[in-house]
Amino acid sequence: MKKYTFHLFAILGMALFLSSCGDQNGKASSNSGLSSNNAEKVYVAPGEHDEFYAFMSGGYSGNLTVYGLPSGRMFKEIPVFSQFPTSGYGYSEETKPMLNTSFGFVPWDDAHHPDISQTNGELDGRWIFINGNNTPRIARISLSTFETEEIMEVPNSAGNHSSSFVTENTEYVVAGTRFSVPIPQRDMPINEYKGNFRGSLSFISVDPEDGHMDLKFQILMPGFNYDLSHPGRGKSHGWFFFTTYNTEEANSLLEVNASQNDKDFIAAVNWKKIEEYVANGGGTMMPAEYAHNVYDEETHTATSTLKKEVLTIDPTKVPGTVYFLPTPKSPHGVDVDPSGEYIIGNGKLSADLTIHSFDKMVAAIEAKKFDGEAYGIPILKFEDVLAGTVKSGGLGPLHTEFDGEGNAYTTFFISSEVVMWKLGTWEVVDRKPTYYSVGHLMIPGGNSRKPFGKYVVAMNKITKDRYLPTGPELEHSAQIYDISGDKMELIYDFPTHGEPHYAAGIPAELLAPKSKKIYKLSENKHPFAATGPADSKVVREGNEVHIYMSMIRSHFTPDNIEGIKVGDKVYFHVTNQEQDFDVPHGFAMIGANNSELLIMPGQTKSLVWEPKKAGVWPFYCTDFCSALHQEMQGYIRVSPAGSNTELSWSLGE
Amino acid sequence: MKKYTFHLFAILGMALFLSSCGDQNGKASSNSGLSSNNAEKVYVAPGEHDEFYAFMSGGYSGNLTVYGLPSGRMFKEIPVFSQFPTSGYGYSEETKPMLNTSFGFVPWDDAHHPDISQTNGELDGRWIFINGNNTPRIARISLSTFETEEIMEVPNSAGNHSSSFVTENTEYVVAGTRFSVPIPQRDMPINEYKGNFRGSLSFISVDPEDGHMDLKFQILMPGFNYDLSHPGRGKSHGWFFFTTYNTEEANSLLEVNASQNDKDFIAAVNWKKIEEYVANGGGTMMPAEYAHNVYDEETHTATSTLKKEVLTIDPTKVPGTVYFLPTPKSPHGVDVDPSGEYIIGNGKLSADLTIHSFDKMVAAIEAKKFDGEAYGIPILKFEDVLAGTVKSGGLGPLHTEFDGEGNAYTTFFISSEVVMWKLGTWEVVDRKPTYYSVGHLMIPGGNSRKPFGKYVVAMNKITKDRYLPTGPELEHSAQIYDISGDKMELIYDFPTHGEPHYAAGIPAELLAPKSKKIYKLSENKHPFAATGPADSKVVREGNEVHIYMSMIRSHFTPDNIEGIKVGDKVYFHVTNQEQDFDVPHGFAMIGANNSELLIMPGQTKSLVWEPKKAGVWPFYCTDFCSALHQEMQGYIRVSPAGSNTELSWSLGE
Repeated sequence: MKKYTFHLFAILGMALFLSSCGDQNGKASSNSGLSSNNAEKVYVAPGEHDEFYAFMSGGYSGNLTVYGLPSGRMFKEIPVFSQFPTSGYGYSEETKPMLNTSFGFVPWDDAHHPDISQTNGELDGRWIFINGNNTPRIARISLSTFETEEIMEVPNSAGNHSSSFVTENTEYVVAGTRFSVPIPQRDMPINEYKGNFRGSLSFISVDPEDGHMDLKFQILMPGFNYDLSHPGRGKSHGWFFFTTYNTEEANSLLEVNASQNDKDFIAAVNWKKIEEYVANGGGTMMPAEYAHNVYDEETHTATSTLKKEVLTIDPTKVPGTVYFLPTPKSPHGVDVDPSGEYIIGNGKLSADLTIHSFDKMVAAIEAKKFDGEAYGIPILKFEDVLAGTVKSGGLGPLHTEFDGEGNAYTTFFISSEVVMWKLGTWEVVDRKPTYYSVGHLMIPGGNSRKPFGKYVVAMNKITKDRYLPTGPELEHSAQIYDISGDKMELIYDFPTHGEPHYAAGIPAELLAPKSKKIYKLSENKHPFAATGPADSKVVREGNEVHIYMSMIRSHFTPDNIEGIKVGDKVYFHVTNQEQDFDVPHGFAMIGANNSELLIMPGQTKSLVWEPKKAGVWPFYCTDFCSALHQEMQGYIRVSPAGSNTELSWSLGE
Repeated sequence: MKKYTFHLFAILGMALFLSSCGDQNGKASSNSGLSSNNAEKVYVAPGEHDEFYAFMSGGYSGNLTVYGLPSGRMFKEIPVFSQFPTSGYGYSEETKPMLNTSFGFVPWDDAHHPDISQTNGELDGRWIFINGNNTPRIARISLSTFETEEIMEVPNSAGNHSSSFVTENTEYVVAGTRFSVPIPQRDMPINEYKGNFRGSLSFISVDPEDGHMDLKFQILMPGFNYDLSHPGRGKSHGWFFFTTYNTEEANSLLEVNASQNDKDFIAAVNWKKIEEYVANGGGTMMPAEYAHNVYDEETHTATSTLKKEVLTIDPTKVPGTVYFLPTPKSPHGVDVDPSGEYIIGNGKLSADLTIHSFDKMVAAIEAKKFDGEAYGIPILKFEDVLAGTVKSGGLGPLHTEFDGEGNAYTTFFISSEVVMWKLGTWEVVDRKPTYYSVGHLMIPGGNSRKPFGKYVVAMNKITKDRYLPTGPELEHSAQIYDISGDKMELIYDFPTHGEPHYAAGIPAELLAPKSKKIYKLSENKHPFAATGPADSKVVREGNEVHIYMSMIRSHFTPDNIEGIKVGDKVYFHVTNQEQDFDVPHGFAMIGANNSELLIMPGQTKSLVWEPKKAGVWPFYCTDFCSALHQEMQGYIRVSPAGSNTELSWSLGE
């Protein structure tokens, strides 16, 4: 049932790229009459605030970026999986453990799908989760501090792409393998993949009080590629849906070999039933190695624990828990509408969208109307579960979001457009070009029970001529469409940082009031904190020297230190004594093989410096903090190894 | 002559912060009638382009960010001094040498003052330079590729702040010490600073053909703090001006101890005269260690060379080369007007601006009217060189730019405002509040002979309530004022990334046409390039394995590799075969203690991976490159150390 050949498909893609470029010129000119109206729509005047937060994954930056809508302005880059020299994340002693894995320190990842915690299917704005694709990890970020608080590595996984989406009450955040691998890992020929490699779908529980994550169970699946996922909601709460491709189980040249089957599957997982099974002692504990890293807000310090086993579930041994829904064709996104009834399969090599019905699925399961099985997992009949098909004429559907008004919006990568259509009637209402080759799209709350359907943001994969050129490397581009009327209206282009895959939006009023402004010095439990000048000291322990340093506008205590020697390992533990909002200080030491420390009010951070040369070496504050910021500096005298310079420290003497 | 006490000053600063917050509310409401007009002024409609590039320093990000004006959108972050996981800069084998220094690998710096190359005093748009403050370095970035091409470490330096400004024909880019140190470095008591520590002003030549830098000479100066600098132009071409503070030579609590003198100095340096002296064999060669790192666009690879000596100049031995101009009070910025006549000292603890006259300075020097000397350097009389004073009533002047229409614009940090005044008459024309506590400001070309005076951008140090809150850490904020009319008009707020100190703007039409789109495969001279599938191979040399890999939409060649063993050091040398604009591919390997590689069309990059566990491990493309991007993956079989698995590689077999 091979529908496209390799060469044909490449040519088709090329042609469509060209035609979408052509569209753009026409569009720009036809739009010009609306410019001033659109200008006002996206303009946020000085002193005013945006209406929505948009949390956009950084993709290959490894981080999460925070934008405002409708202005498209970037307010912060939150370091998650990657070292971030700007603040010292992944360089400071306190944050290095956050990037620990069973493979050792991994300073980068590919962050894909942010999802905001939910209560009763609505955004609750407590945390946001995001997955690391490459070295499989799930991170939890606080939405009061906007800091990464926890990272859980996912064992028995690879290409952690069908992640990190949450269930209706944030009972679980899920992770799934895009790349199947031997489970457990072993040295075996790659071309024996078929039937031997496995996928895994991991369910990580989230503590409702403090958000702490625990890997509860892993479902071991056939060796397909699990691409994306979304939870059921409302009546389908308790189920989770995962797309698959490469049901061919090809191990090489997937471009050709994984595009052979006319239909792949959406896997429907009844996690409530598995939860019961686990509660009753079901599952097999299996040796595994994975890091669990937790940042403590009071000690300002992360710890990393290597976990040693994981509970695995063989779904063929727990009947009624996993079913396959045939879905054309290499489906990429799977999205569930706000009612929980419709499960939309975005078959990336298909022109049509396939919508499955939850009610029909349940009926077919109850009637045991199966069409065979795959590795012991029942396959439902396509016709029995199909709710309808959207025939839009677009090519390359990838993702769908919802506006809560009965409309769905689907991106088409190849034909470079967003298509708006009606749930239930499947009729196309509107379509607008994107510039160019859109991937994900986002409506605030658009994957929850309660979307806020005012804007849709398209995240595009190709930028080309949208902005002033910046050499061969360009930022990706996003576009905002106003969807408050009957039709979509393109109102703005804005560049994004890294490569946003999915994003999560939320009304500002749900987050802004509880945003933390400072860390209280009185709550600082860092073991090396100097919460006032009186705590400042320098302590030598062999060749380790610990400097307990405090900083306040506009000096360090101490600022003259002697008695350090070549060969020492010097720890600067620096506490920002300020207790006002937006008065960070920075700390930098000349020649350190390290980044700076950017330290928020009330916070303590530590930097290691191994002086290599005798002399007198300066340090200084890197954040312009007051009119006398330039004066905020100090010196360290480094004597040769073995010399007798006495340890001493002072300020203003 | 101590004018402010420590506590008084702190209270003053606090009071002014509060009052500037109060202003903001009034401003926002009075502005609302103008909103729609301002919205149109900053709106760049989809498909249209910004009028100007703005290159904003990233400050403690260590990088350079590229914005469009008037939209305030960020188009790129160019990694310069810091590791950048997004692209692999500082992680890939090719770019690690860029961050080498005499202190070893330094993965971060504090990037302050970008300056675009000039010809005849006008922006020529070939290169942009920027300084690393902490571990003293100067970088040169290509404005056709937007990549860092060269980094020169600066020896005998610390706190490289009065950098990196260029002379009228880019003969030199300068660097100067904000922190004086023992020169050469030696183990000595810190409190013997006075009279023993030295500053240095370094003149780095720039090859007019290829931009290559060479440290020509260093002027050894008294141990003051050299804060900022600007070149003469027109009639003052051949001179360079540096501000000083801490002429008290305090070594501790500078906040108090370096604010004692009523006047510090602007150092006027006749570099043309020193150049002659050097050409005639003058100066003393001194041992020094400093790295010189050069990136080759054809091999896509950087090399680092450790240089061993530097030519130093004792200015007291070369009469007529350096003079001190007394300037109140701890001057921060020094700026030269487009005509080259006026040298503006921004005395940060002064209410007034002090403007010196170049003509008067030359006359006073010729008449030998000196008011004593400091460490052998003649001091001119304040009254003899004074052109005028701007009495604005503002507090804390920091920096001045020019619009080419006879107006100057000065930032006042403490009173949080930009003041517009007339050159020659010194009258204040307009003043507008900033939100909050402005540092630098920028007019495109505003520090050249030919400014483009349409917008001024204020770069503010305090953000507080300007945007939706993001926890304790906020981005800094910039503001755009329209200066095309008689008065300044605030038209937009936009957040910036890192902490922009200075910026450099240039009309888009001068850069955009020559922006490079791809690297030609035919010009790729990388020693490990696989410019086509036929070049792909895997070569073992002991425990080092070199994989020559090519990538094209949508597969790697090879994509199945066996015969790798635990304990091997695997080099992936990955070449992007694409030759279309904006078709990068990425490369990531599970568990690598490294970042990804982001590889532009025609480029080769290399990543080291040391596999730790036997098994079959995937790699994949991280940049969504085509409809079959998800299929762009491969596997590597890792066998235990000492096993006999044969080395083999394949695609589609």
